[in-house]
Amino acid sequence: MRSTVLLLAAKRLASAGVQRTVGNSTNPAMQFPCLDKLEKISEDLRGLKPSQETAEVLSEGSGRTRDPIYGKVKSGFQLFNSDKPLFLDYGGVLPNFQIAYETWGKLNKEKSNAILIHTGLSASSHAHSSQANNKPGWWEDFIGPGSVALDTNKWFLICTNVLGGCYGSTGPSSLDPADGLPYASRFPMLSVHDIIRAQQRLISEHFGIDMLYASVGCSLGGMQSLCYGQQFPDQVKKIVSVSGCARSHPSSIAMRHVQRQVLMADRNWNRGFYYPTVDEPNRIPPHIGMKLAREIATISYRSGPEWESRFGTERLDDDQAPVLCPDFLIETYLDHQGEKFSLEYDANSFLYLSKTMDLFDLSQSHLQRSERRRKKMESLYNSSERYDEKDNIIPNKPYALKRRRTTTKEEAHADLATGMRPLLNKDVLVVGVKSDGLMPYWQQREIYDMLGGEQNDRVKFKALEESDSQYGHDTFLLDLNHIGGSIGDFLRIDD
Amino acid sequence: MRSTVLLLAAKRLASAGVQRTVGNSTNPAMQFPCLDKLEKISEDLRGLKPSQETAEVLSEGSGRTRDPIYGKVKSGFQLFNSDKPLFLDYGGVLPNFQIAYETWGKLNKEKSNAILIHTGLSASSHAHSSQANNKPGWWEDFIGPGSVALDTNKWFLICTNVLGGCYGSTGPSSLDPADGLPYASRFPMLSVHDIIRAQQRLISEHFGIDMLYASVGCSLGGMQSLCYGQQFPDQVKKIVSVSGCARSHPSSIAMRHVQRQVLMADRNWNRGFYYPTVDEPNRIPPHIGMKLAREIATISYRSGPEWESRFGTERLDDDQAPVLCPDFLIETYLDHQGEKFSLEYDANSFLYLSKTMDLFDLSQSHLQRSERRRKKMESLYNSSERYDEKDNIIPNKPYALKRRRTTTKEEAHADLATGMRPLLNKDVLVVGVKSDGLMPYWQQREIYDMLGGEQNDRVKFKALEESDSQYGHDTFLLDLNHIGGSIGDFLRIDD
Repeated sequence: MRSTVLLLAAKRLASAGVQRTVGNSTNPAMQFPCLDKLEKISEDLRGLKPSQETAEVLSEGSGRTRDPIYGKVKSGFQLFNSDKPLFLDYGGVLPNFQIAYETWGKLNKEKSNAILIHTGLSASSHAHSSQANNKPGWWEDFIGPGSVALDTNKWFLICTNVLGGCYGSTGPSSLDPADGLPYASRFPMLSVHDIIRAQQRLISEHFGIDMLYASVGCSLGGMQSLCYGQQFPDQVKKIVSVSGCARSHPSSIAMRHVQRQVLMADRNWNRGFYYPTVDEPNRIPPHIGMKLAREIATISYRSGPEWESRFGTERLDDDQAPVLCPDFLIETYLDHQGEKFSLEYDANSFLYLSKTMDLFDLSQSHLQRSERRRKKMESLYNSSERYDEKDNIIPNKPYALKRRRTTTKEEAHADLATGMRPLLNKDVLVVGVKSDGLMPYWQQREIYDMLGGEQNDRVKFKALEESDSQYGHDTFLLDLNHIGGSIGDFLRIDD
Repeated sequence: MRSTVLLLAAKRLASAGVQRTVGNSTNPAMQFPCLDKLEKISEDLRGLKPSQETAEVLSEGSGRTRDPIYGKVKSGFQLFNSDKPLFLDYGGVLPNFQIAYETWGKLNKEKSNAILIHTGLSASSHAHSSQANNKPGWWEDFIGPGSVALDTNKWFLICTNVLGGCYGSTGPSSLDPADGLPYASRFPMLSVHDIIRAQQRLISEHFGIDMLYASVGCSLGGMQSLCYGQQFPDQVKKIVSVSGCARSHPSSIAMRHVQRQVLMADRNWNRGFYYPTVDEPNRIPPHIGMKLAREIATISYRSGPEWESRFGTERLDDDQAPVLCPDFLIETYLDHQGEKFSLEYDANSFLYLSKTMDLFDLSQSHLQRSERRRKKMESLYNSSERYDEKDNIIPNKPYALKRRRTTTKEEAHADLATGMRPLLNKDVLVVGVKSDGLMPYWQQREIYDMLGGEQNDRVKFKALEESDSQYGHDTFLLDLNHIGGSIGDFLRIDD
């Protein structure tokens, strides 16, 4: 009777088209429909007419599959061009750059009602729908006439695509003026401070605004918001940081590190050079690496209790054998989140900005080192001096694990407190979410405490309990009532 | 002056051997020494003489790099062979199987002093050094004459390599008796209950032990330990579960899901068929996918506060520009952990057992469905009946996200309580660690509460505060004092 089973198993294998096994098999071979699908997407991206499935992933399904989605966001925003070089915290330079931005509401005569909105890692300047682009923005419900959060009858709102991004601002997919080819991984590493210095040019040079009414941001945007106050304390009145931090934590770095390494392991990433060129027109973006990186990111954006309520440990079909492709509800959710994102965002922008978040630190020593490197590059750029090969600051050997940290926690604490001094006399609102695992509650509390905590009337702290929100880090995108309401109340004080 | 910078940049590019860029570049190109290293390892594995660096990864450095490390653990354990088929919870069958095991101490005449130790996902039967294998075992300090945890003067200890593993027990790298080729992804999906039924044959058929004094395990081993009590309540006296759970949680499933998807995306994985064959002798194991999966796993095994103390947010060299390869201390730690593991364990064993952990559930409905599937396979196996292609239980189309959970939390709770009834009259010790993010404290508390909690004198609960251990899920491997001491105390009661 065993042979019957084997025969049937073999028959199954044959009918399933599995070519990798030879002869009979005791049990039917595992099927990998999730991998078949990814291979099909790669094939379609290489220039064939997309199948319906791929068209769904490409969502807008223009048929021109060789353009990644992000390449399609080409209108609906304004462009600010800066022709002066921007010297960067880690020793690089951008000879010129552009910043994509959108605005809502009307700047008053005194130019005193402007609020700068900072985005998270992957968002565009499209925070809200507009005549130029009527699609809902990433903060659609938080913005509008009479909104509890950002009332466009009252405020003039500006939102930019961050430097390093791929929605109109200069980033790794932009052309290097030196040779007219995409920067790719020749793009210089950015700090959050660099991003802010680029934005500040837009605010002061383009809009002629001397004093922002407020700087508002969540996640990476929260970092940016604090950073604006630190670098330009005399050019911003109020600061709002939601689910941000004063410096990154090794746990968050760890989560972003694995996303980057997974993405870089996708062969299509090709060390950053995946943009099609005349010589290599069939290059395709690393959509599999991006999908996987986004799945990992999604774990850090959401929370366990939400998933328990929503998915539990149910599988889609208990009558079918478990497989290594997704079959738990939670797996199909992650798979879907990853797939949706896989062609929406430029992989190099993702990698660079992810590292930028890791590097964020308002500590004094960090600022000092950055300034030294910036000045060095500036003086080099403005002289005819040559530097030597041995000055190359990009290491070309892998690091080995050598040691534990060399500064104590107390030293690091004092360093951070010194760095944050410029913020002490500002009106600051810090909002934290207890279900947030990526920028945990204690990091919000750290910002508050660094700014004097209860001893300082000008700093406000709002904490969302788990009973208020189970949405984790993503709460800022979803909870108009708690997050939007707190921001609106804070902005209305003494305005 | 700009041209000087550009010229220098170009000179650097040329000297670094970067071929992918054309012409000049404003900033020096990023270097990727971490990817160079992985490519070198792949090359070495394909059969060339290993470089010193690769030899370090291969640790034992035999030069025969085509054998993955796990293939080298071929001695130092005993083998139990079972020739009766094992019918499996998800509808598969193993016509025969073997279990690798080791023992320490001496079985007494009454056969009343045997303790079965269950391992975590990737451990071998080598829990402690022995004459046959004098290398330190994975629980070296917890076992020995007079040990506070497992005293070999008193107990006869047995540890097995789990079914599905790669250290001597039957798993995906074993040969399918149907055709003499490795099972690979033709291996059937296992449940924790299947693993236990295989172990129980060793205990009763080989050792002739009717009643284990105790079943002890941590992590996957904790699941196994509870499972032994549930399936064979009359064959085990005491149950110890450390950092286990009664059913998996969607957050843990999510963390394991991304590990599996990342591993499966490594082209060398080749849908499970990476074992070299006569036809394809140059296949190599998916060492990059394994490295990445292990890095993700390490995040779930350890804890943020430990990393904060140990690494903070320091980089290895603040004078060098940040790169996308690891440069934070925490990154080099993860990189190292991943690399060490990348050739130590069979990728298919990892994938299958990872899913087995996801599927773990002591609920009654789960047991009933499993029994139905097992019986169906048994009757098929023992008859000449054929089954139809439409009975194929392995889905071959990707699932789409369709829905939320269909049972309420309350229904799931009642289902679990019913399933766990056989454990109600056993002596059970549940140990939980508050810094554990993978099998969180509340899951330990759930086991305890399901067993009657404070109403039941026979169930003991021990919780380690964060001040006791910051080692997270891995505490069970490291904390002899708290974990080992609790186990020893519990075993000594009424012995």
